[in-house]
Amino acid sequence: MLSESSPLGEFDLIQRFFKTGALAMRSNSDHTISLGIGDDCALLKPISGEEIAITSDMLVEGRHFFSNANPALLGRKALAVNLSDLAAMGARPLGFTLAIALPQPDPIWLEAFSKGLFAMANAFSCPLIGGDTTAGPLTISITAFGSIPTGKAIRRSGAKPGEDIWVSGTTGDARLTLAALRHEIAISEADLRHIEHRMHDPIPRVDLGYRLRNIASAALDVSDGLLGDLQHLLNQSQVSAEIFLERIPKSSILKKQAEDIQNQFAACGGDDYEICFTAPVAQRHVIEAISKDLNLPITRIGQTIEMNNSQATVRLFKTDGSLIGDTEAATYLKSFDHFAS
Amino acid sequence: MLSESSPLGEFDLIQRFFKTGALAMRSNSDHTISLGIGDDCALLKPISGEEIAITSDMLVEGRHFFSNANPALLGRKALAVNLSDLAAMGARPLGFTLAIALPQPDPIWLEAFSKGLFAMANAFSCPLIGGDTTAGPLTISITAFGSIPTGKAIRRSGAKPGEDIWVSGTTGDARLTLAALRHEIAISEADLRHIEHRMHDPIPRVDLGYRLRNIASAALDVSDGLLGDLQHLLNQSQVSAEIFLERIPKSSILKKQAEDIQNQFAACGGDDYEICFTAPVAQRHVIEAISKDLNLPITRIGQTIEMNNSQATVRLFKTDGSLIGDTEAATYLKSFDHFAS
Repeated sequence: MLSESSPLGEFDLIQRFFKTGALAMRSNSDHTISLGIGDDCALLKPISGEEIAITSDMLVEGRHFFSNANPALLGRKALAVNLSDLAAMGARPLGFTLAIALPQPDPIWLEAFSKGLFAMANAFSCPLIGGDTTAGPLTISITAFGSIPTGKAIRRSGAKPGEDIWVSGTTGDARLTLAALRHEIAISEADLRHIEHRMHDPIPRVDLGYRLRNIASAALDVSDGLLGDLQHLLNQSQVSAEIFLERIPKSSILKKQAEDIQNQFAACGGDDYEICFTAPVAQRHVIEAISKDLNLPITRIGQTIEMNNSQATVRLFKTDGSLIGDTEAATYLKSFDHFAS
Repeated sequence: MLSESSPLGEFDLIQRFFKTGALAMRSNSDHTISLGIGDDCALLKPISGEEIAITSDMLVEGRHFFSNANPALLGRKALAVNLSDLAAMGARPLGFTLAIALPQPDPIWLEAFSKGLFAMANAFSCPLIGGDTTAGPLTISITAFGSIPTGKAIRRSGAKPGEDIWVSGTTGDARLTLAALRHEIAISEADLRHIEHRMHDPIPRVDLGYRLRNIASAALDVSDGLLGDLQHLLNQSQVSAEIFLERIPKSSILKKQAEDIQNQFAACGGDDYEICFTAPVAQRHVIEAISKDLNLPITRIGQTIEMNNSQATVRLFKTDGSLIGDTEAATYLKSFDHFAS
């Protein structure tokens, strides 16, 4: 049906909320986008000598966010989680496509969502270059593109035995926020206000990823829990790890919780969007300088070691050097599985 | 939760159905994919002197396909509709990402879906390079990438007045299939068998798009109805069109229907995945030769003219040259709107 017969048709929708914002951004770009929204395809002009990093994330209502989620924050987060993947490779953002299914075209919701989305896009110079809108259960699928000099991407597979393992920021606060919202854990209103942005409005570590080119040997973004995600890096690099559980960086608010909650949330809470990486010992001073420059804590939580029996494993230690037993360790090594109930 | 605690976890799922097929294809590629599934991002090495064409399409259960849709055909179609967008720009497929939400990880469904998906991917040398899987209402979001020499993409905006308007293949059979399945129109079982692939298993016109580089002045893929889609091309090119309604190419099976049904389905049926394009009159012989080479009908349905009052419009004519009145014409000019009920 033509758009005139429905209060807000698909083409109006694209025009009103997405194309306008996308066009406004193109003038700020460095001309790598030669054609944006409005044709069969967008056209991206690659930077000579650079590769394109590509990542896709899909967010589903009721699974990744609550039905009553603030649409502006949701717009920010939908892009942020993709920028976090670009950051983990050391890529500079170039642009993104948005495919979105909406139960109905609600102008108030869409205005807030697109405002949040474009605020995040502007903050990281990452314009919307194309996409698709359709009716359906609320689902947001973003594919983001970054640029990185050929061969310089920080892969998961580059770690060697005897290197340091680092993580940016703190982990566990998004999980603590979720626990508080679910009334599983009681924290003060003031404390909740202080940490809830970690769940609702994560900041991708794009500057850190960029600075880690040529320094980190391997990296990934922490989205499904620190130690579970680290396991993927270890598998691809074919190394094992020794981690000092209590060194995993936690916020002062998480530190108010019982020790087992602290450790569990920080080790496998999920939704952290920090960068976990490995680097040669010789890079310690450089990494500490980057931490200072970016005003972002970067904490050394352990080291890589040779594998035993061709199995990449994580061994957990207490600060006094004693090994944590298998049963206790298993509770910290779980990774989030989107199909587990 | 770890994958071992659920019958088929997210990581198993990616590994079992998608990574294996993706890796099998990489050996066939020309090394433009330097890193596929399994890291934070895929890495695409651009071809020197070429741009990257990017398109996203989202398919939602109950909206774009029936709940009981054959998963193998659905896998084929999900990629085909994106390849059709690449074809309309004249781009050669490079690869794609898949973000998919599934109500549950059903191995039988997934095996059939991935088989169909990879069959289409192989047919057009377009490997899966990354993506995301999650739980949620069945939603398939593919972003596909193509390569095209810089400046050679066939845009919607390049048509000039006095050019021919062409369309490939025939249109209306997907709409006729839908009408038959909905029991709105009675057609024989044999006829349905003959045309239903047009709805369930469209073939993207990738070879045609490639051959139209340097020949077509503007093009788009016909997915929401021929004349409605043509309107987008006209708007972007700032030209009007004169179309001979009866010249729109129809299958012999559609031609068995009453004339108004024929015209309506062919003009605005949707789901056709043909290419509509404009070209200078001087290119007629070249286009006829391409049609012969590809064994694909390409039909001249009208011409572009100067706009009147800065409005890009479509005027419809009968074969005898008489203008079709506005009221009748309006029924052929509707475009599919995903938010109309």
